[in-house]
Amino acid sequence: MGVETMVKRRSHETTDCPIARSLDAIGDWWSLLIVRDALKGQRRFGEFQKSTGAAKNILAVRLQNLVAHGVMRMEPAADGAHQEYVLTDKGFDLFPLLVAFAQWGETHFFEPGEPRIEILDRETQQKLPRLEVRAADGRRMSVKDAALQVPGDER
Amino acid sequence: MGVETMVKRRSHETTDCPIARSLDAIGDWWSLLIVRDALKGQRRFGEFQKSTGAAKNILAVRLQNLVAHGVMRMEPAADGAHQEYVLTDKGFDLFPLLVAFAQWGETHFFEPGEPRIEILDRETQQKLPRLEVRAADGRRMSVKDAALQVPGDER
Repeated sequence: MGVETMVKRRSHETTDCPIARSLDAIGDWWSLLIVRDALKGQRRFGEFQKSTGAAKNILAVRLQNLVAHGVMRMEPAADGAHQEYVLTDKGFDLFPLLVAFAQWGETHFFEPGEPRIEILDRETQQKLPRLEVRAADGRRMSVKDAALQVPGDER
Repeated sequence: MGVETMVKRRSHETTDCPIARSLDAIGDWWSLLIVRDALKGQRRFGEFQKSTGAAKNILAVRLQNLVAHGVMRMEPAADGAHQEYVLTDKGFDLFPLLVAFAQWGETHFFEPGEPRIEILDRETQQKLPRLEVRAADGRRMSVKDAALQVPGDER
Protein backbone atom coordinates (compact mmCIF):
# COMPACT_ATOMS: atom_id res chain seq x y z
CA MET A 1 0.00 0.00 0.00
CA GLY A 2 2.76 2.42 0.91
CA VAL A 3 4.70 4.21 -1.75
CA GLU A 4 8.29 4.95 -0.83
CA THR A 5 9.81 7.96 -2.47
CA MET A 6 13.26 9.39 -2.27
CA VAL A 7 13.07 13.10 -2.56
CA LYS A 8 16.11 15.25 -3.00
CA ARG A 9 15.32 18.70 -1.71
CA ARG A 10 16.90 21.88 -2.94
CA SER A 11 16.62 25.08 -1.05
CA HIS A 12 14.33 27.48 -2.85
CA GLU A 13 15.27 30.46 -0.74
CA THR A 14 16.94 32.07 -3.71
CA THR A 15 14.03 31.62 -6.09
CA ASP A 16 11.95 34.62 -7.08
CA CYS A 17 8.79 32.50 -6.98
CA PRO A 18 6.73 33.01 -3.80
CA ILE A 19 5.04 29.63 -4.29
CA ALA A 20 8.39 27.86 -4.22
CA ARG A 21 9.48 29.77 -1.11
CA SER A 22 6.26 28.81 0.63
CA LEU A 23 6.79 25.15 -0.21
CA ASP A 24 10.32 25.40 1.12
CA ALA A 25 9.16 26.94 4.39
CA ILE A 26 6.55 24.31 5.04
CA GLY A 27 9.16 21.68 4.33
CA ASP A 28 7.19 18.73 3.16
CA TRP A 29 3.70 17.81 2.23
CA TRP A 30 2.58 16.26 5.42
CA SER A 31 3.74 19.16 7.53
CA LEU A 32 0.53 20.84 6.42
CA LEU A 33 -1.35 18.25 8.45
CA ILE A 34 0.54 19.45 11.53
CA VAL A 35 -0.57 23.00 10.73
CA ARG A 36 -4.13 21.74 10.24
CA ASP A 37 -4.07 20.10 13.66
CA ALA A 38 -2.49 23.13 15.29
CA LEU A 39 -5.30 25.26 13.84
CA LYS A 40 -7.69 22.85 15.57
CA GLY A 41 -5.95 23.62 18.84
CA GLN A 42 -3.47 20.77 19.26
CA ARG A 43 -0.22 21.73 20.95
CA ARG A 44 1.54 18.60 22.17
CA PHE A 45 4.03 16.38 20.42
CA GLY A 46 2.02 13.29 21.35
CA GLU A 47 -1.19 14.78 19.97
CA PHE A 48 0.45 15.53 16.61
CA GLN A 49 1.92 12.06 16.56
CA LYS A 50 -1.46 10.49 17.05
CA SER A 51 -3.34 12.67 14.57
CA THR A 52 -0.79 12.56 11.75
CA GLY A 53 0.41 9.00 12.29
CA ALA A 54 3.99 10.13 11.68
CA ALA A 55 6.94 8.35 13.26
CA LYS A 56 8.54 10.22 16.17
CA ASN A 57 11.77 11.10 14.39
CA ILE A 58 9.99 12.33 11.25
CA LEU A 59 7.51 14.38 13.29
CA ALA A 60 10.40 15.91 15.24
CA VAL A 61 12.14 16.99 12.02
CA ARG A 62 8.94 18.48 10.64
CA LEU A 63 8.18 20.44 13.80
CA GLN A 64 11.76 21.65 13.89
CA ASN A 65 11.47 22.86 10.31
CA LEU A 66 8.20 24.68 11.01
CA VAL A 67 9.82 26.36 14.02
CA ALA A 68 12.94 27.25 11.98
CA HIS A 69 10.77 28.98 9.37
CA GLY A 70 8.74 30.85 11.95
CA VAL A 71 5.47 29.02 11.29
CA MET A 72 5.35 27.58 14.81
CA ARG A 73 7.14 28.33 18.04
CA MET A 74 7.84 26.35 21.15
CA GLU A 75 6.55 27.46 24.50
CA PRO A 76 6.51 25.87 27.94
CA ALA A 77 3.25 24.13 28.80
CA ALA A 78 1.18 25.42 31.73
CA ASP A 79 2.61 22.69 33.96
CA GLY A 80 6.14 23.74 33.02
CA ALA A 81 7.13 20.12 32.55
CA HIS A 82 7.25 20.03 28.78
CA GLN A 83 7.26 22.14 25.64
CA GLU A 84 4.31 22.75 23.40
CA TYR A 85 4.14 23.84 19.78
CA VAL A 86 1.96 26.78 18.88
CA LEU A 87 1.33 28.62 15.64
CA THR A 88 2.83 32.06 15.13
CA ASP A 89 0.96 34.78 13.23
CA LYS A 90 2.71 33.51 10.11
CA GLY A 91 1.26 30.09 10.86
CA PHE A 92 -2.24 31.40 11.47
CA ASP A 93 -1.94 33.16 8.16
CA LEU A 94 -2.00 29.74 6.46
CA PHE A 95 -5.74 29.57 7.10
CA PRO A 96 -6.82 30.58 3.53
CA LEU A 97 -4.37 28.08 2.10
CA LEU A 98 -5.79 25.26 4.24
CA VAL A 99 -9.32 26.26 3.27
CA ALA A 100 -8.28 26.13 -0.40
CA PHE A 101 -6.89 22.64 0.11
CA ALA A 102 -10.00 21.48 1.94
CA GLN A 103 -12.36 22.83 -0.68
CA TRP A 104 -10.43 21.40 -3.61
CA GLY A 105 -10.32 17.99 -1.94
CA GLU A 106 -13.96 18.09 -1.02
CA THR A 107 -15.03 19.04 -4.54
CA HIS A 108 -12.95 16.49 -6.38
CA PHE A 109 -12.24 13.58 -4.09
CA PHE A 110 -15.47 12.92 -2.23
CA GLU A 111 -18.74 11.44 -3.38
CA PRO A 112 -21.79 13.55 -2.56
CA GLY A 113 -22.91 12.68 0.95
CA GLU A 114 -19.68 10.87 1.82
CA PRO A 115 -18.74 11.65 5.43
CA ARG A 116 -16.00 14.22 5.68
CA ILE A 117 -14.50 16.79 7.95
CA GLU A 118 -16.08 20.16 7.25
CA ILE A 119 -15.04 23.69 8.04
CA LEU A 120 -17.99 25.56 9.48
CA ASP A 121 -18.71 29.12 10.43
CA ARG A 122 -18.68 28.95 14.22
CA GLU A 123 -21.40 31.57 14.49
CA THR A 124 -23.97 30.09 12.11
CA GLN A 125 -22.72 26.47 11.87
CA GLN A 126 -22.97 26.87 8.10
CA LYS A 127 -20.43 25.68 5.56
CA LEU A 128 -18.05 28.23 4.15
CA PRO A 129 -18.67 29.29 0.55
CA ARG A 130 -15.94 28.55 -2.01
CA LEU A 131 -12.88 30.75 -1.85
CA GLU A 132 -12.80 32.96 -4.89
CA VAL A 133 -9.95 34.79 -6.51
CA ARG A 134 -11.06 38.34 -7.16
CA ALA A 135 -9.51 41.30 -8.91
CA ALA A 136 -9.01 44.63 -7.11
CA ASP A 137 -12.34 45.84 -8.56
CA GLY A 138 -14.16 42.75 -7.31
CA ARG A 139 -14.38 40.82 -10.59
CA ARG A 140 -14.17 37.03 -10.14
CA MET A 141 -10.98 35.78 -11.72
CA SER A 142 -10.09 32.51 -13.37
CA VAL A 143 -6.61 31.46 -14.41
CA LYS A 144 -7.25 32.92 -17.83
CA ASP A 145 -7.73 36.39 -16.37
CA ALA A 146 -4.37 36.27 -14.61
CA ALA A 147 -0.90 37.01 -15.92
CA LEU A 148 2.41 36.21 -14.27
CA GLN A 149 4.98 38.94 -14.15
CA VAL A 150 8.52 37.65 -13.90
CA PRO A 151 11.24 40.05 -12.62
CA GLY A 152 13.30 41.55 -15.41
CA ASP A 153 10.49 40.78 -17.80
CA GLU A 154 8.16 43.73 -17.07
CA ARG A 155 6.03 45.02 -19.88
CA MET B 1 23.24 22.32 0.65
CA GLY B 2 20.66 19.72 -0.28
CA VAL B 3 18.64 17.98 2.35
CA GLU B 4 17.87 14.39 1.59
CA THR B 5 14.71 13.06 3.10
CA MET B 6 13.23 9.63 3.04
CA VAL B 7 9.49 9.98 3.08
CA LYS B 8 7.23 7.03 3.56
CA ARG B 9 3.91 7.83 2.00
CA ARG B 10 0.62 6.35 3.08
CA SER B 11 -2.43 6.55 0.94
CA HIS B 12 -4.90 8.99 2.40
CA GLU B 13 -7.75 7.93 0.16
CA THR B 14 -9.57 6.50 3.12
CA THR B 15 -9.25 9.56 5.32
CA ASP B 16 -12.26 11.75 5.93
CA CYS B 17 -10.09 14.87 5.75
CA PRO B 18 -10.31 16.69 2.42
CA ILE B 19 -6.96 18.37 3.03
CA ALA B 20 -5.24 14.99 3.33
CA ARG B 21 -6.94 13.71 0.18
CA SER B 22 -5.79 16.78 -1.72
CA LEU B 23 -2.23 16.25 -0.57
CA ASP B 24 -2.43 12.64 -1.66
CA ALA B 25 -3.70 13.58 -5.11
CA ILE B 26 -0.98 16.09 -5.75
CA GLY B 27 1.52 13.50 -4.67
CA ASP B 28 4.43 15.48 -3.43
CA TRP B 29 5.33 19.02 -2.67
CA TRP B 30 7.13 19.92 -5.83
CA SER B 31 4.37 18.65 -8.06
CA LEU B 32 2.67 21.95 -7.31
CA LEU B 33 5.44 23.64 -9.27
CA ILE B 34 4.43 21.55 -12.29
CA VAL B 35 0.86 22.76 -11.83
CA ARG B 36 2.15 26.33 -11.51
CA ASP B 37 4.03 26.00 -14.79
CA ALA B 38 1.09 24.35 -16.53
CA LEU B 39 -1.08 27.27 -15.43
CA LYS B 40 1.49 29.50 -17.15
CA GLY B 41 0.93 27.54 -20.35
CA GLN B 42 3.76 25.00 -20.36
CA ARG B 43 2.86 21.64 -21.89
CA ARG B 44 6.04 19.75 -22.73
CA PHE B 45 8.08 17.36 -20.65
CA GLY B 46 11.26 19.26 -21.51
CA GLU B 47 9.73 22.57 -20.47
CA PHE B 48 8.71 21.20 -17.07
CA GLN B 49 12.14 19.68 -16.64
CA LYS B 50 13.81 23.01 -17.28
CA SER B 51 11.48 25.09 -15.11
CA THR B 52 11.33 22.76 -12.10
CA GLY B 53 14.90 21.49 -12.29
CA ALA B 54 13.68 17.97 -11.51
CA ALA B 55 15.51 14.87 -12.75
CA LYS B 56 13.81 13.09 -15.65
CA ASN B 57 12.72 10.02 -13.72
CA ILE B 58 11.31 12.04 -10.82
CA LEU B 59 9.47 14.39 -13.16
CA ALA B 60 8.03 11.39 -15.02
CA VAL B 61 6.67 9.90 -11.77
CA ARG B 62 5.16 13.22 -10.74
CA LEU B 63 3.46 13.79 -14.07
CA GLN B 64 2.17 10.22 -13.99
CA ASN B 65 0.72 10.79 -10.54
CA LEU B 66 -0.98 14.03 -11.60
CA VAL B 67 -2.47 12.21 -14.61
CA ALA B 68 -3.57 9.27 -12.44
CA HIS B 69 -5.43 11.63 -10.11
CA GLY B 70 -7.06 13.50 -12.98
CA VAL B 71 -5.23 16.77 -12.40
CA MET B 72 -3.54 16.62 -15.80
CA ARG B 73 -4.09 14.60 -18.95
CA MET B 74 -1.88 13.66 -21.85
CA GLU B 75 -2.72 14.69 -25.34
CA PRO B 76 -0.89 14.47 -28.65
CA ALA B 77 0.98 17.64 -29.62
CA ALA B 78 -0.06 19.51 -32.75
CA ASP B 79 2.78 17.90 -34.67
CA GLY B 80 1.59 14.45 -33.57
CA ALA B 81 5.15 13.46 -32.76
CA HIS B 82 4.97 13.58 -29.00
CA GLN B 83 2.63 13.83 -26.03
CA GLU B 84 1.93 16.96 -24.06
CA TYR B 85 0.58 17.42 -20.55
CA VAL B 86 -2.38 19.71 -20.04
CA LEU B 87 -4.43 20.59 -16.99
CA THR B 88 -7.93 19.17 -16.63
CA ASP B 89 -10.73 21.22 -15.07
CA LYS B 90 -9.73 19.68 -11.75
CA GLY B 91 -6.24 21.02 -12.35
CA PHE B 92 -7.43 24.50 -13.30
CA ASP B 93 -9.43 24.45 -10.11
CA LEU B 94 -6.14 24.59 -8.18
CA PHE B 95 -5.86 28.28 -9.06
CA PRO B 96 -7.11 29.63 -5.68
CA LEU B 97 -4.75 27.26 -3.90
CA LEU B 98 -1.76 28.47 -5.91
CA VAL B 99 -2.76 32.08 -5.28
CA ALA B 100 -2.92 31.32 -1.55
CA PHE B 101 0.58 29.83 -1.69
CA ALA B 102 1.92 32.78 -3.66
CA GLN B 103 0.42 35.37 -1.32
CA TRP B 104 1.60 33.63 1.83
CA GLY B 105 5.12 33.35 0.41
CA GLU B 106 5.15 36.91 -0.76
CA THR B 107 3.98 38.25 2.58
CA HIS B 108 6.34 36.29 4.76
CA PHE B 109 9.41 35.36 2.75
CA PHE B 110 10.26 38.44 0.71
CA GLU B 111 11.69 41.76 1.73
CA PRO B 112 9.72 44.79 0.54
CA GLY B 113 10.85 45.61 -2.98
CA GLU B 114 12.67 42.31 -3.47
CA PRO B 115 12.15 41.12 -7.06
CA ARG B 116 9.55 38.39 -7.29
CA ILE B 117 7.11 36.76 -9.64
CA GLU B 118 3.74 38.45 -9.30
CA ILE B 119 0.25 37.39 -10.25
CA LEU B 120 -1.45 40.26 -12.05
CA ASP B 121 -4.92 40.95 -13.31
CA ARG B 122 -4.47 40.63 -17.07
CA GLU B 123 -7.02 43.38 -17.71
CA THR B 124 -5.66 46.09 -15.43
CA GLN B 125 -2.09 44.82 -14.84
CA GLN B 126 -2.77 45.35 -11.13
CA LYS B 127 -1.81 43.00 -8.32
CA LEU B 128 -4.52 40.76 -6.94
CA PRO B 129 -5.81 41.65 -3.48
CA ARG B 130 -5.31 39.10 -0.69
CA LEU B 131 -7.57 36.06 -0.80
CA GLU B 132 -9.97 36.25 2.07
CA VAL B 133 -11.96 33.55 3.77
CA ARG B 134 -15.53 34.76 4.07
CA ALA B 135 -18.63 33.36 5.69
CA ALA B 136 -21.83 32.77 3.70
CA ASP B 137 -23.08 36.21 4.81
CA GLY B 138 -19.86 37.89 3.64
CA ARG B 139 -18.19 38.34 7.05
CA ARG B 140 -14.39 38.06 6.89
CA MET B 141 -13.32 34.98 8.79
CA SER B 142 -10.19 34.15 10.73
CA VAL B 143 -9.29 30.75 12.10
CA LYS B 144 -10.98 31.69 15.35
CA ASP B 145 -14.33 32.09 13.60
CA ALA B 146 -14.14 28.60 12.13
CA ALA B 147 -15.05 25.25 13.61
CA LEU B 148 -14.19 21.81 12.29
CA GLN B 149 -16.96 19.29 12.15
CA VAL B 150 -15.72 15.72 12.24
CA PRO B 151 -18.08 12.95 10.99
CA GLY B 152 -19.82 11.10 13.81
CA ASP B 153 -19.17 14.08 16.03
CA GLU B 154 -21.99 16.40 14.96
CA ARG B 155 -23.43 18.72 17.53
